[in-house]
Amino acid sequence: MDYSGRSRELRESLAENRLDALLVSHLPNVRYLCGFTGSAGAIVVTPKAAVFFTDGRYTAQAREEVYGSRIKVDKNAPVIAAAHWLSRNSAKLRRKGPIRIGIEGNYFTVSSREALAKSLSWNFRISVAPPLVERLRAVKDAEEIQALRAAAELGGKLFDRALEIIRPGVREIEVAAEMEYLARTSGAQEMSFPTIIASGPRSALPHGRASPAPIPASGFVVCDFGVILSGYCSDVTRSVYVGTPKPAARHTYKAVRRAQSAALEAVRPGVAVSAVDHAARRVLKSERLAQYFSHSTGHGLGLEIHETPRIAAKQTDVLHAGMVITIEPGVYIPGEWGVRIEDTVLVTENGSEVLTSTSKKLITL
Amino acid sequence: MDYSGRSRELRESLAENRLDALLVSHLPNVRYLCGFTGSAGAIVVTPKAAVFFTDGRYTAQAREEVYGSRIKVDKNAPVIAAAHWLSRNSAKLRRKGPIRIGIEGNYFTVSSREALAKSLSWNFRISVAPPLVERLRAVKDAEEIQALRAAAELGGKLFDRALEIIRPGVREIEVAAEMEYLARTSGAQEMSFPTIIASGPRSALPHGRASPAPIPASGFVVCDFGVILSGYCSDVTRSVYVGTPKPAARHTYKAVRRAQSAALEAVRPGVAVSAVDHAARRVLKSERLAQYFSHSTGHGLGLEIHETPRIAAKQTDVLHAGMVITIEPGVYIPGEWGVRIEDTVLVTENGSEVLTSTSKKLITL
Repeated sequence: MDYSGRSRELRESLAENRLDALLVSHLPNVRYLCGFTGSAGAIVVTPKAAVFFTDGRYTAQAREEVYGSRIKVDKNAPVIAAAHWLSRNSAKLRRKGPIRIGIEGNYFTVSSREALAKSLSWNFRISVAPPLVERLRAVKDAEEIQALRAAAELGGKLFDRALEIIRPGVREIEVAAEMEYLARTSGAQEMSFPTIIASGPRSALPHGRASPAPIPASGFVVCDFGVILSGYCSDVTRSVYVGTPKPAARHTYKAVRRAQSAALEAVRPGVAVSAVDHAARRVLKSERLAQYFSHSTGHGLGLEIHETPRIAAKQTDVLHAGMVITIEPGVYIPGEWGVRIEDTVLVTENGSEVLTSTSKKLITL
Repeated sequence: MDYSGRSRELRESLAENRLDALLVSHLPNVRYLCGFTGSAGAIVVTPKAAVFFTDGRYTAQAREEVYGSRIKVDKNAPVIAAAHWLSRNSAKLRRKGPIRIGIEGNYFTVSSREALAKSLSWNFRISVAPPLVERLRAVKDAEEIQALRAAAELGGKLFDRALEIIRPGVREIEVAAEMEYLARTSGAQEMSFPTIIASGPRSALPHGRASPAPIPASGFVVCDFGVILSGYCSDVTRSVYVGTPKPAARHTYKAVRRAQSAALEAVRPGVAVSAVDHAARRVLKSERLAQYFSHSTGHGLGLEIHETPRIAAKQTDVLHAGMVITIEPGVYIPGEWGVRIEDTVLVTENGSEVLTSTSKKLITL
């Protein structure tokens, strides 16, 4: 991964954001900037340098993993070690007036901020920085796209396994257990979120984690799952039908599939994420199902399962080539059934490429 | 679970902490106080009331799960909904002077604090509260102890499974996959932390997550794992030996086992956690192994895998009956081997009860 390039790009964005330094402590952001995968680390980025801080437990791991940043091992917690380093180097950051240090407001806790303020010398001013690393992370480079592609491919294999297991009477957790077993033996570190296997009326729960309930004799089974492979997440949903679907169930499935296709077709660079969301919602509205589509259309994914941009009506982001997002409209009729279809999609120069290779035809089991 | 009793106890502690209300938004704390297991919720506790806030996705789930608190479903995020409710009810909280509202400094983010301040009326003052809910959670009640006992029991079964799988040439992740499969099919929601299967020289890594590496022909295999069953965590470590251990390896194992026993014997109400840590460390010192024991002796566990109290040299907590903690000394000789032995222990009126039933004799495979 191009750690040096990433931290250079971040360094170049400091001045325009009126920052003399940025303290990055959200671990996925730290990993993105230098490669460190441990549980205690922070980076200070200044216009001239990137310095990584960790504690003694990670001396060997930091030397092995960290690129593009100097490494400082300290007995203090990384944020405090960073504060001491900043205080010692304050003259290099700004000769006159207060030194402006940015923190990650969405992750930095109130107590950490108090501890940071106590550990910095008097001439620093702490402010909440814009989500600069998150913006960089939203556009994936070639190596990241390769990792996301491999993760999506493994996701497809897990679904094939699910199809072998799903039948009436099998408990939802057994389906999840078989998929997770395959994920693990295929090299996944862990699942990217708790596996959703939601059958019968439970399919109407958008977040119906696999439960000990047996799959009923007929009805939808929503399968939503993902792996973390080499640090990158996959995310896919397919809804299959056990038994013979009645016309209303077929109609709902088709409507969701059309909505998903419409949103996919809307994906290309320069398009507002709200327009993609609208494309899915419009189809469901024409089928009088829009009121049952109770969540947003998708989200970015990468080192984390939910990243910038969110594909939602009130968001103002615009798609760029290299973004990787999910497109996942759903319809949930309480007490009856639910259907969701989700692909992972790469925004390309000319439009999009679906990374999820699994068929979207209605599978009946 | 006695949700009403818990929130009553919290309400009664507000005055002595000079708070007119406490805003609880750390989800395990929210769950502890009212039973809610979803991903969007907050509770306001005042001297007279406990009010739970969530959003529209969780209307049905909140009605099913929440006890001992009034439920408010709002289109805003729970913390903002709570701020609006507090502002509307400010006259009931305090007639004169600023109203003091406490937040959880270790969890509340800087951005959430800014949003909260903007949403509260002018007469509120936000302050960081002491970890009041964490202190309540440290002492488990009978139902919680039962849940922790069941989780520990399932942990034991997973280890029996590991013993069937571990042999030279089997990949560490295969061992983890088999254990996790059994956990899932036995009803565990998920593992309580990434499963550690660390063999050969990898056993010297205190956090050696199961890797694709095959188990070598001889050496220690450290197995550290836990499940979440009905919301409560288990945590156990056993170190087995593949092949025939040489005297030095046997000696190290015996020393760690003696250190673990010494710490266990020190556990009883009224004892300082630092004394328990010291008991383990003293044994290893007498064997000239103390320098290789690079972490603390244990931690509380319950709804989270790491809870109050930490069993460490510099901590000032004292044990109370009803606390559930781990005792897990280890010795890690870089590049050579590592050994850790960990039990989950209930502090009883008269001493302690080990909830982990697995033998601690050195098992050779």
